[in-house]
Amino acid sequence: MPTRHDAVEVILAKRDRHELTDSQIDWVIDAYTRGDVADEQMAALAMAVLLNGMNRREISRWTGAMIASGERMDFSSLSRPTADKHSTGGVGDKITLPLAPLVAACGVAVPQLSGRGLGHTGGTLDKLESIPGWRAALSNEEMLAQLESVGAVICAAGDGLAPADKKLYALRDVTGTVEAIPLIASSIMSKKIAEGTGALVLDVKVGTGAFMKSLDSARELAETMVALGQDAGVHTVALLTDMSTPLGLTAGNAVEVQESVDVLAGGGPADVVELTLALAREMLAGAGRTDVDPAEVLASGRAMDAWKAMIRAQDGDPDAALPQARESHVVTAPSSGVLTRLDAMAVGLAAWRLGAGRARKEDPVQAGAGVVWHARPGDPVTAGQPLFTLLTDEAERFDRALASLEGGYDVAPEGTPFTPGPIVIDRVS
Amino acid sequence: MPTRHDAVEVILAKRDRHELTDSQIDWVIDAYTRGDVADEQMAALAMAVLLNGMNRREISRWTGAMIASGERMDFSSLSRPTADKHSTGGVGDKITLPLAPLVAACGVAVPQLSGRGLGHTGGTLDKLESIPGWRAALSNEEMLAQLESVGAVICAAGDGLAPADKKLYALRDVTGTVEAIPLIASSIMSKKIAEGTGALVLDVKVGTGAFMKSLDSARELAETMVALGQDAGVHTVALLTDMSTPLGLTAGNAVEVQESVDVLAGGGPADVVELTLALAREMLAGAGRTDVDPAEVLASGRAMDAWKAMIRAQDGDPDAALPQARESHVVTAPSSGVLTRLDAMAVGLAAWRLGAGRARKEDPVQAGAGVVWHARPGDPVTAGQPLFTLLTDEAERFDRALASLEGGYDVAPEGTPFTPGPIVIDRVS
Repeated sequence: MPTRHDAVEVILAKRDRHELTDSQIDWVIDAYTRGDVADEQMAALAMAVLLNGMNRREISRWTGAMIASGERMDFSSLSRPTADKHSTGGVGDKITLPLAPLVAACGVAVPQLSGRGLGHTGGTLDKLESIPGWRAALSNEEMLAQLESVGAVICAAGDGLAPADKKLYALRDVTGTVEAIPLIASSIMSKKIAEGTGALVLDVKVGTGAFMKSLDSARELAETMVALGQDAGVHTVALLTDMSTPLGLTAGNAVEVQESVDVLAGGGPADVVELTLALAREMLAGAGRTDVDPAEVLASGRAMDAWKAMIRAQDGDPDAALPQARESHVVTAPSSGVLTRLDAMAVGLAAWRLGAGRARKEDPVQAGAGVVWHARPGDPVTAGQPLFTLLTDEAERFDRALASLEGGYDVAPEGTPFTPGPIVIDRVS
Repeated sequence: MPTRHDAVEVILAKRDRHELTDSQIDWVIDAYTRGDVADEQMAALAMAVLLNGMNRREISRWTGAMIASGERMDFSSLSRPTADKHSTGGVGDKITLPLAPLVAACGVAVPQLSGRGLGHTGGTLDKLESIPGWRAALSNEEMLAQLESVGAVICAAGDGLAPADKKLYALRDVTGTVEAIPLIASSIMSKKIAEGTGALVLDVKVGTGAFMKSLDSARELAETMVALGQDAGVHTVALLTDMSTPLGLTAGNAVEVQESVDVLAGGGPADVVELTLALAREMLAGAGRTDVDPAEVLASGRAMDAWKAMIRAQDGDPDAALPQARESHVVTAPSSGVLTRLDAMAVGLAAWRLGAGRARKEDPVQAGAGVVWHARPGDPVTAGQPLFTLLTDEAERFDRALASLEGGYDVAPEGTPFTPGPIVIDRVS
């Protein structure tokens, strides 16, 4: 039972730029979870944290208090080490889908507890739910059994993990206090540490389509989260990766599953393969398995076998046809030349407006909706060739989706020199 | 109907140090009053305002929006001009009691809508309620009739005036957002402007026993409020007055009524008389009556006549004996010499702990409780003479009251040179 404090005392301390004590932090998180600190008090505190910051000790304690608000999973009984990956969210970011079975096929268990998408970046569970029969909800026992038998599980995070974070996250969403690095970092890390993974790789996106628009803020978030992981004894590294351009050639649900299966089959867009392998190497290294080459395992077909086993274990049919949108609309290239820019936010918004994502958490998503693009920056294009295919079940959605694509790409005259930037920008450990 | 905005949009604007637009301010105050903006959203906005500030236009608009949230009184039908006074709250601050009838006796009507005390500074209504029979609640019609017949009314502000402020004030109290000058100024001025007074004098207290501890912050608050009054067409001036030392010789309820009656009878402590006259002159000047000398009117007994008429009009008996505390305790001077310091906060807390004030707004107060001091800074004292008399109905309250007086006064050796500072420190107009 934490020492008794007073909500106003804690708010005033942070408002007046003092450090919060360990005892104040433990109390306020516990009391908020129990309802003894009111939403309006936590909102004022969150705004004070956003504007006045927290130091490493405070953030670490805050994270620990959120972990302590709920249950903590334990995978120490598994016969293999565990590693997980978390992405801060990007457009076309289906990397978890090929990555989890690939790492499992390399001998490291992947306990991936995911959320549903809100906004333009989509959610891993929404994508997987386009597979006929597949179910996201697993009991802890089912999860543990699947980790032992298949080595990979992607499922919905239960309500028992970090309930303080769940409540605080919903509050921040409506009070303009989402964009606080201490709160973002502690939110992500409390869930990942409570999840019980032994190693963690963070994919911190930076660019127009990412939550972090600047490299500086992305680096600060990455460094904060890596420090939190270290403080909690979780082997944590972060990659800063580009999210100015969307990943691969698809953004949506079923279309991203198909692209992931292409990668597992040895094909797929080069950038998706590159980032999957880079993250796999980090996860394997974090779990102490530097002896396995994930590129070889991918080429061998064993990652595909793990994918099928993983989908079947959750009642999905990996061989069933994926849902297709009822309506499609093609956007053609306005001129010949080189595609020099494809804006992640424009594509993400278009996919969202087509029905691939949701505005409120109770909204449904369309399995077949999304955007497919037929060139990536650096590719030559010919006037009149298909540049985008827009997919939706409701044709009336095309107009607003087209509006969001407007100005979202550039075609430069043929011969314009252009070199796409790297996908992995930096590494923080 | 204000333009529709979104709560998060308004919060983000202030969070990110932008000016709020008139339309955003109008909307957020209206929507908060109606319940469309939630308490947690307003709490986050209030913290952002506290930390990032508002400029004069924003504060003026904010005040106007709070006024527009409720009814606005109109005294233009009265046969004489109106003037009111507002004090930011001090220990022993009974000035409203002699001041309102004095100014009325000078020919200017005083519509004083007051609140109850919360914390160590006491409330005008609590003091008046120690008079047998007196009632604080008047209808608007009763108030207007009394202003015409008696010229002065001190009564409870109805729920109809600035309901947005009422709701916001309660929220700020529990969210650590009280100490924001834009919010303090707009809270006070929205009520005073809605009250419909033609002229307004602000008594901004500064010192240990005041809300504003430093002269700089008191001056900023005074200047902000004077500007708001000007923007609303109310003739407004502010006096910055000392609140390091409590006013007069009493802090409590019935004891302060008695001291006020002493002043109206031509006696009373010199500082109470001085401040009452200074504020009366400002109110008269604001109402255009520079031809009347309040000192003469006070000496003539006409202010006392107005007091009795005012009390009777609200069913009180001005000649009835005032309630007395059941228990008393005397603190004697530890040595002979000169009283060089009497701390307002120490005295205020002692009176509050004796039962004169309340901790929560639903708590009752004791009419007889309080502190009487028998010397003021500059007065000679003799070892063993009574220095304080503590009054309460519950003897078990003495210990904590005595603890708060400890260290709250200094007696210097006889002959120590000491000159008390001025009561009126500065004037802002």
